[in-house]
Amino acid sequence: MNTSHEIEVYVRFCETDAVGHVNNTSYFLYFEEARTKFFSEICPERDASFSFILASVTCDYLSQAYASQILKLSTVVKNVGTKSFTLLHTLKEVDTGVDIAECISVTVCFNYSDQGTIPIPKNVRKRLEEYLIAS
Amino acid sequence: MNTSHEIEVYVRFCETDAVGHVNNTSYFLYFEEARTKFFSEICPERDASFSFILASVTCDYLSQAYASQILKLSTVVKNVGTKSFTLLHTLKEVDTGVDIAECISVTVCFNYSDQGTIPIPKNVRKRLEEYLIAS
Amino acid sequence: MNTSHEIEVYVRFCETDAVGHVNNTSYFLYFEEARTKFFSEICPERDASFSFILASVTCDYLSQAYASQILKLSTVVKNVGTKSFTLLHTLKEVDTGVDIAECISVTVCFNYSDQGTIPIPKNVRKRLEEYLIAS
Amino acid sequence: MNTSHEIEVYVRFCETDAVGHVNNTSYFLYFEEARTKFFSEICPERDASFSFILASVTCDYLSQAYASQILKLSTVVKNVGTKSFTLLHTLKEVDTGVDIAECISVTVCFNYSDQGTIPIPKNVRKRLEEYLIAS
Repeated sequence: MNTSHEIEVYVRFCETDAVGHVNNTSYFLYFEEARTKFFSEICPERDASFSFILASVTCDYLSQAYASQILKLSTVVKNVGTKSFTLLHTLKEVDTGVDIAECISVTVCFNYSDQGTIPIPKNVRKRLEEYLIAS
Repeated sequence: MNTSHEIEVYVRFCETDAVGHVNNTSYFLYFEEARTKFFSEICPERDASFSFILASVTCDYLSQAYASQILKLSTVVKNVGTKSFTLLHTLKEVDTGVDIAECISVTVCFNYSDQGTIPIPKNVRKRLEEYLIAS
Repeated sequence: MNTSHEIEVYVRFCETDAVGHVNNTSYFLYFEEARTKFFSEICPERDASFSFILASVTCDYLSQAYASQILKLSTVVKNVGTKSFTLLHTLKEVDTGVDIAECISVTVCFNYSDQGTIPIPKNVRKRLEEYLIAS
Repeated sequence: MNTSHEIEVYVRFCETDAVGHVNNTSYFLYFEEARTKFFSEICPERDASFSFILASVTCDYLSQAYASQILKLSTVVKNVGTKSFTLLHTLKEVDTGVDIAECISVTVCFNYSDQGTIPIPKNVRKRLEEYLIAS
């Protein structure tokens, strides 16, 4: 791996549930924020005709997280295909370094003018490869 | 009052928080659902140029609600102005009849073609008045 | 398959996003509601010491869904292991029958008194098997 | 006013809705984060028996906000009563300084041991008064 894309998120109280920990659905808020910011970085010149469409997402829950914690979300690229690519997001608690969750997401490149999937644009592919991990 | 608009909502587990009850932010999900369905009833013929815009909303928290409860949301009209109207939503737990919360919302009529507020259309005003309570 | 567990959900406006469709994170609200209700059915006698813990969840996004639609969520059992079981949830739009999303979730049985995973209780296993699909 | 408590929030894409702007329900996520952090500051020594309970909240929507914006949330104290106090939260878009929303919230001091409301503790009252605005 050359590099990873990193953000920090603060766990809001409303993201917890009556068991006392962060609810299973809240993790996807964090993963979406990571993807949005990652996409801004690898494709800052994106216009309205082009879009990244989420095809699938998987989350493995490893440890519990709690209100007011700061979590670090690292994003790397696991695979770059023709029209789609696979991201790996890992979520750690900053204070303890404990692994909280791991997420794999598959995103497809889409053109609204043609209403269809398209090959990953060259400049996007080049930037994705900077985050590619050895498989 | 002639009539009230009623819906029931199921409390999702993810709508609770680490205190064990429904989180303060979740009530607004229920109130929005009540407004959406109420607007479909009083303005079924709405086209894309016309919109109801929320100007303000107040919630008074009366009792705690819990996961898996069924809540009944009753909506009536408190006031009909020239361009805006005020709704009163009351939220009760169905099994016990306990009052959970009360919400007052002010909605403004808006025209996207003119990008401005407009008087409440006559047919909408007429239907709003069917839900008007004595003040 | 002997049977499937079915619920219907109404798509709230706040569950959509600026693209105009249901946001990728909202589907997990629906899947959680399906699991909660399914667990009440297969384990109505659950006490505070016993819990179902979500280990992983995957969602494949198949078609877009929109505000105010009614979606049908069918849950069946894909696999029953020693301490965990795998559910398959399918989400369809009721009016058109269009497949919206598919979710696979793995749940582990957990005992709070011992703070550890435990074998699926016999009565739960028996009820899970009523929903088991041929693999 | 002596001082105000300030935080910044990033608008997540999932916090927008199909109209294209931030959904009315999402603002309450931001206000809750502001309150949580403000309470940590005015009452860092809080133990499990003592709690701040939200009694009511009002939001006035002033301008639209959009995905990926950074919003600044300033919190001041509007009034300090015997057992409750009133906060005023203002939300601005950082880049333009545009006023997005204004929120007034009333919080009550609660003791879990006695299961009842209690007078605002002296040390909390003193810190609240540091944020009190002239009325």
